[in-house]
Amino acid sequence: MTSASLCAPLKPGSTIGILGGGQLGRMLAQAAARLGLHAHIYCPNPQAPAFEVSSTRTIAQFDDRKALQKFARSVDVVTFEFENIPLMAADLVAEQVPLYPNRKALEISQDRGVEKAFIEQLGLHVADWWAIDSADDLTDALTQCAAPGLLKTRRLGYDGKGQIPLDQNDDAGQAFAQIGEQPAVLEKKINFEREISVVLVRGSQDQVNCYDLPHNLHNNGILFSSTVPSGLPAELEQQAKDAAMKIAAALDYKGVLAVEFFVAGDANAPKLIVNEFAPRVHNSGHWTLDACTCDQFENHVRAVAGWPLGATTRHSNAQMTNLLGAQVLDWFELAKHADMALHFYGKAGSKAGRKLGHMTKISPIAAKIQTI
Amino acid sequence: MTSASLCAPLKPGSTIGILGGGQLGRMLAQAAARLGLHAHIYCPNPQAPAFEVSSTRTIAQFDDRKALQKFARSVDVVTFEFENIPLMAADLVAEQVPLYPNRKALEISQDRGVEKAFIEQLGLHVADWWAIDSADDLTDALTQCAAPGLLKTRRLGYDGKGQIPLDQNDDAGQAFAQIGEQPAVLEKKINFEREISVVLVRGSQDQVNCYDLPHNLHNNGILFSSTVPSGLPAELEQQAKDAAMKIAAALDYKGVLAVEFFVAGDANAPKLIVNEFAPRVHNSGHWTLDACTCDQFENHVRAVAGWPLGATTRHSNAQMTNLLGAQVLDWFELAKHADMALHFYGKAGSKAGRKLGHMTKISPIAAKIQTI
Repeated sequence: MTSASLCAPLKPGSTIGILGGGQLGRMLAQAAARLGLHAHIYCPNPQAPAFEVSSTRTIAQFDDRKALQKFARSVDVVTFEFENIPLMAADLVAEQVPLYPNRKALEISQDRGVEKAFIEQLGLHVADWWAIDSADDLTDALTQCAAPGLLKTRRLGYDGKGQIPLDQNDDAGQAFAQIGEQPAVLEKKINFEREISVVLVRGSQDQVNCYDLPHNLHNNGILFSSTVPSGLPAELEQQAKDAAMKIAAALDYKGVLAVEFFVAGDANAPKLIVNEFAPRVHNSGHWTLDACTCDQFENHVRAVAGWPLGATTRHSNAQMTNLLGAQVLDWFELAKHADMALHFYGKAGSKAGRKLGHMTKISPIAAKIQTI
Repeated sequence: MTSASLCAPLKPGSTIGILGGGQLGRMLAQAAARLGLHAHIYCPNPQAPAFEVSSTRTIAQFDDRKALQKFARSVDVVTFEFENIPLMAADLVAEQVPLYPNRKALEISQDRGVEKAFIEQLGLHVADWWAIDSADDLTDALTQCAAPGLLKTRRLGYDGKGQIPLDQNDDAGQAFAQIGEQPAVLEKKINFEREISVVLVRGSQDQVNCYDLPHNLHNNGILFSSTVPSGLPAELEQQAKDAAMKIAAALDYKGVLAVEFFVAGDANAPKLIVNEFAPRVHNSGHWTLDACTCDQFENHVRAVAGWPLGATTRHSNAQMTNLLGAQVLDWFELAKHADMALHFYGKAGSKAGRKLGHMTKISPIAAKIQTI
């Protein structure tokens, strides 16, 4: 298998191919347009939100070899908006055109077991975990865990999907059946003080810029809000940035990478535990749209197009809140908050729990920061 | 002639029709998308920059009655990105769907003579001027003017086009021939200290928000840069805002309105002179994209869609510089300024003097402001 790489920065007028057409692809396409780059969106869903704001579209499945090859021939570089792109599709595309982030990042992030082993090999902490391939594995793991845990499928989980909380005495056979008897991991439940994430961008010449860390709150496994600054001590934030940069370097990464952490331990001896990483722009980086000169979407486009990276400094404090399902029906009331930046993704319907938009309240950095 | 008006705010998923597909239409379409609204661009130019970022397009001339009617039937409201839309087109559209800003604003702004008379009737100052319909008119006017002046066509002038600087002793016949013997005005040249503009948004319920005033520099009649804050005393800025709001109210205006002023007189007795107004988003408001939570494009969309207006406060100081012609060929060097927000309009070629992009440098408001 050959794999192309970018020889020179892509000048304005070039085309970025984007696999996936959800809100992340949409905001990537918008960022590309601001830089004078075309976006060609590849997505099976004819109603994909990203089609609305891009010049070229391919509506096809991710296993359609002909469509993938034609797509690859029509663009100058390919990136993706979610990590569950089939490897076959990535490989096929990469034969003809540079693919950033690379296959390695995609492959590792697609399997929770492989991902955890990879992170541990770098000397970073993850929650105690056990590979589960059978109900017997799960029985043994629950005994060893000796505490509440989370059973997660190794593949295709997101936003809390494919996850079951388990107690030591729960029925292993039933739980394993419930996730479809597919390869999984059991994670020991972490008593964490808060969740944070590092969103960084790594460019050509291995330059890395990290955005400030948000403090993330989740609800039912779905991100509820991200607040910057996080309120954590600077040294701990730097530790998290260092860990994320270690992961990026080990992946020979190009583009935006998000790494989620738990802050565990006690206040005097906090400990960072890596939850997972996402080889793409990330919901916990949406605040950068309104609080930074160069947001995560533009920086991702800059990185994959071989451009100099933009600054990741912020001009304001920010609190981003997701708008899920029926919350968007309140659009008129939300729009009355004159100081709130609203972002709607143009999705039809208001299905419960679905991410349909977000809003960001920014405030001056000089203002007193409430630590929580 | 009937004219429709908006009965209720347009909910996300509605469609804004935009007459004109240049960079202003493009940035309006991008703003509409962020609010979950569709943009339908109507433009004769198949390469229109706005097509790139909008879901629906009509490629047709502005005198194509059938195309205009079909366009009007397919959208929920119509706005425009430049004031030289033929009135026939505006009228045809307004029979079927609300048109904001309204016909009156469009009509007055299309004729420099009508515009100046309108502004004077409101008790505001314009430069001394004379209506010119013949070479004899011009001879008389030059005598009365008794100072250097500018001969400007009444219609279709922009970015310094259709303008000739004249001295008292210049040949009137030759000058009038040079502008095609069309209706014109002679303006007495103003010795101004600086140029500023008010960009305001007026919404339903006649709510008005003004952005802070930029100090504008022109080069060869084309805007070179806009800097905020302007460095002018607050009272003078307020006078300019009051004048602009007076114009907006007299037009029963809805949307973003830009009013350009000269600051003349001496430092102890500064005098505001209205240069012209533009019934649309304006180049001197581009800095709002990077220094405000709600930029001029989003506020225009909010106003014409009947939404609550966004705040016009800014979080940063800003200096916007236009990128003309071959300047965009330096895109890679420009992109190295990590703290500079770059905006390219996706236009092909690099014709001299053509507006192909802009860049904005923002800085903290707390930083010392250099007055010039």
